[in-house]
Amino acid sequence: MDNKSYQQLARTFLRLSRFSHLSAIASWDMFAMMPPGGSAARGEALAELSVLEHQILTEPKVAQWLAAAAQEDLNDVEQANLREMTRLHTQAALLPESLVEAKSLAGSRCEHAWRSQRPANDWQGFSANLREVVKLSREEARLRAQVKGGSPYDALLDIYEPEMTSAQLDGLFADLKSWLPDLLNRVVVRQSQQSLVAPVGPFPTAVQRELGLETMSVLGFDFNAGRLDISAHPFCGGVPEDVRITTRYDENELLSALFGVIHETGHARYEQNLPRNWLGQPVALARSTAIHESQSLFFEMQVGRSNAFLQRLLPAVKRHFGSQAAFEEQNFIAWNQRVKPGFIRVDADEVSYPAHVILRYEIERALINGDIEVEDIPALWDEKMQAWLGLSTKGNYRDGCMQDIHWTDGGFGYFPSYTLGAMYAAQLFSAANRALPGLSQQIAGGDFSALFDWLRQNIWQHGSRFTTEQLITQATGETLNSRHFRAHLESRYL
Amino acid sequence: MDNKSYQQLARTFLRLSRFSHLSAIASWDMFAMMPPGGSAARGEALAELSVLEHQILTEPKVAQWLAAAAQEDLNDVEQANLREMTRLHTQAALLPESLVEAKSLAGSRCEHAWRSQRPANDWQGFSANLREVVKLSREEARLRAQVKGGSPYDALLDIYEPEMTSAQLDGLFADLKSWLPDLLNRVVVRQSQQSLVAPVGPFPTAVQRELGLETMSVLGFDFNAGRLDISAHPFCGGVPEDVRITTRYDENELLSALFGVIHETGHARYEQNLPRNWLGQPVALARSTAIHESQSLFFEMQVGRSNAFLQRLLPAVKRHFGSQAAFEEQNFIAWNQRVKPGFIRVDADEVSYPAHVILRYEIERALINGDIEVEDIPALWDEKMQAWLGLSTKGNYRDGCMQDIHWTDGGFGYFPSYTLGAMYAAQLFSAANRALPGLSQQIAGGDFSALFDWLRQNIWQHGSRFTTEQLITQATGETLNSRHFRAHLESRYL
Repeated sequence: MDNKSYQQLARTFLRLSRFSHLSAIASWDMFAMMPPGGSAARGEALAELSVLEHQILTEPKVAQWLAAAAQEDLNDVEQANLREMTRLHTQAALLPESLVEAKSLAGSRCEHAWRSQRPANDWQGFSANLREVVKLSREEARLRAQVKGGSPYDALLDIYEPEMTSAQLDGLFADLKSWLPDLLNRVVVRQSQQSLVAPVGPFPTAVQRELGLETMSVLGFDFNAGRLDISAHPFCGGVPEDVRITTRYDENELLSALFGVIHETGHARYEQNLPRNWLGQPVALARSTAIHESQSLFFEMQVGRSNAFLQRLLPAVKRHFGSQAAFEEQNFIAWNQRVKPGFIRVDADEVSYPAHVILRYEIERALINGDIEVEDIPALWDEKMQAWLGLSTKGNYRDGCMQDIHWTDGGFGYFPSYTLGAMYAAQLFSAANRALPGLSQQIAGGDFSALFDWLRQNIWQHGSRFTTEQLITQATGETLNSRHFRAHLESRYL
Repeated sequence: MDNKSYQQLARTFLRLSRFSHLSAIASWDMFAMMPPGGSAARGEALAELSVLEHQILTEPKVAQWLAAAAQEDLNDVEQANLREMTRLHTQAALLPESLVEAKSLAGSRCEHAWRSQRPANDWQGFSANLREVVKLSREEARLRAQVKGGSPYDALLDIYEPEMTSAQLDGLFADLKSWLPDLLNRVVVRQSQQSLVAPVGPFPTAVQRELGLETMSVLGFDFNAGRLDISAHPFCGGVPEDVRITTRYDENELLSALFGVIHETGHARYEQNLPRNWLGQPVALARSTAIHESQSLFFEMQVGRSNAFLQRLLPAVKRHFGSQAAFEEQNFIAWNQRVKPGFIRVDADEVSYPAHVILRYEIERALINGDIEVEDIPALWDEKMQAWLGLSTKGNYRDGCMQDIHWTDGGFGYFPSYTLGAMYAAQLFSAANRALPGLSQQIAGGDFSALFDWLRQNIWQHGSRFTTEQLITQATGETLNSRHFRAHLESRYL
């Protein structure tokens, strides 16, 4: 059968994936390696490549091929690939090249300045750049919503979470809000009655790094196809053939860097196990940011902070840092399952984490929909932090609305993925437990093979072949809901 | 005045320089950071970008603009820029896209395999890949020579050294051959009468790195616009705004890594001081590989191994590694000025270095001109090493013809630059000494400001504004010759 148009598309998307490879590595470098003086030139280079990718993706012949390929004889995977190609083309064709370039430049500028503005608590300086980013993101959202329908914010959300809407999010988050604040209070009260021995540092960076590398090996990270480095904000970047994860070290903290590593290793294993035969095509990409986050939280929260894993980890901790009172087993487990509302999202425990996400979601939605302005953010932030966690961020921008990198380059619509990911992770772990009898004994024994096979079979190998809803229903037998997340939190913390 | 075509060209070349930025960083990463598993995908991504750059550079409208711009009213720098643009366009337009891509892919493959084949002394495996690289380079040379005239090899030489020919090289190298073997013998005999105390290691990598960073600072490296990392083969990469240099460490060697750092710092300062206002245009690029090499050898050989600099360096060495008998001043100086013919080009002293270059030049010229085949290389290598340095490389490919990276990705025509660079460096240092009374006292006192100003004024700030011959004549009052190199070697070593 003839599938010439599909073949043309496959060649075009392969070419695009090669350019994405270069921008992925140059972006990783920007955060992990680049000295400050390289910033302007790097921003311009990446913007130039964005413009090129946008041009290639929106050429008229791509639209013609997409239409023609829909009539061609394609197998299931090819059809899924065509669906994803169409989605990417449609999303890109909405945006004029000038906006793509302006967004990339404004984002680089804001992100770069933020690196020094955040430690300096310089809201004035930061908000000037952020206003430009918001202006361009609103324009983007308006253009997307014109075609897609729905609110401007929904149009951005769709980039990260295809088919997710703020109406659906509102439902899920309203459910969380109905039980989570009470659960959080009960856990905090309950834990306040424990008296825990704190680990005493310093814990040298080099030793923390060794423990991190060792744990990555235990968790199946392929060092032939990836690296561990340092950046201000941990992330997982690179390409499936060469996954770059980062963490940051604080010599006073025992396991903060390590749990960053475990989290990013979850992202990394998803990337390293995307369908090899389809790499370079859209169908081989990870399904969505929330599914990506479900993998990192599966590793960090479902596995990493479980009693079984912490029991397994303790001897390695002692081997690297010697013995001390805090390393008594019950104390060690309880210490790593502490729930302590704090300012910083990336340091938050899993019980208070949704508060950080929901407040950001509410603020960014209002911002993109034009209901508030950049100037309004600090007061709203303070109000919501007070309401959720009883903490004031007045005047403390650094630990408040300037703490995250996401908004600096226009990543509005991304934050909900974290809590969606937590819910998916709990739902997946529950399904894995049903499918794999004796799983927690296996984890305590350091045998993850059955668990990783289950993830490979159910999530990793599928890339973007199925919609998110199909994927999660096939894997767990039900659509997304918060029941398993609630049951998980209650069972671990109450 | 109207200069619309020139403006179109300037925009096109700025765009190209942004893509070059990404390939420069991705190439640096490939040597300094990338795990082996990333190799195939990286090679494909870089090849895709090469093809794109080639397409942009050879578009018919570029030729039209070049012709039209020649009639426009341009200032001196713009005219020089136009000359360089024309050169780049003409060089690229000669080559079909398919050859550009095939070369890039074959080069990546050969280079990557070489990384493990060299330690394994696997000439069979390596030569299979090299044959493909040579085949494509010959095809390139043939196409270039068709347009340029001259031999195929001359056409490759011209890429690195505009206007240099093998006839001119033969003259320069014949001159070296007339006095250098005798000089080398006399130095070896003279030094065999000294009894030197060898430094006793280990010299920990971390301490060597500290000394390297400190020395880079002393030599004016701008860390806001660059980094020092590790690679198997030291190099200077990146972009003028973000220069990436590398070295490699051997804990048994006192200063081998440091002199690598000093060498690359010479390259780096040239890059970091190219004309800022013209960055992104061809006129702001470094003049040629030999002029680049003249800067690294100026730093490493003219300055770095001078008595004055070594006197200045010694206290820092003691501060980092403690004291030992080898650190007595006269011994330390003599140790770092040893002349000892050996197998490895990058470890060679400056007296035996030209032997390594001339033998490679003779072999690669014969190879590209079709007078010999890949299979003939090992025997020729052995024969020439025996004749020049009295060393046999029979069966020892690792330390013989497999030691360099250059040929692996088709860099034929590059090697002569090293010895041209050594001659330029000596000629420049002699001119600087005439212009700057008291220079060696300044160096001994750690004051390099006048020297670096002189280099900035005479070399760095000009980029490619002048031809190599103009540049060197303006800076030194004479055209390239070996008199200063000879005088330098005689004065330092006899």
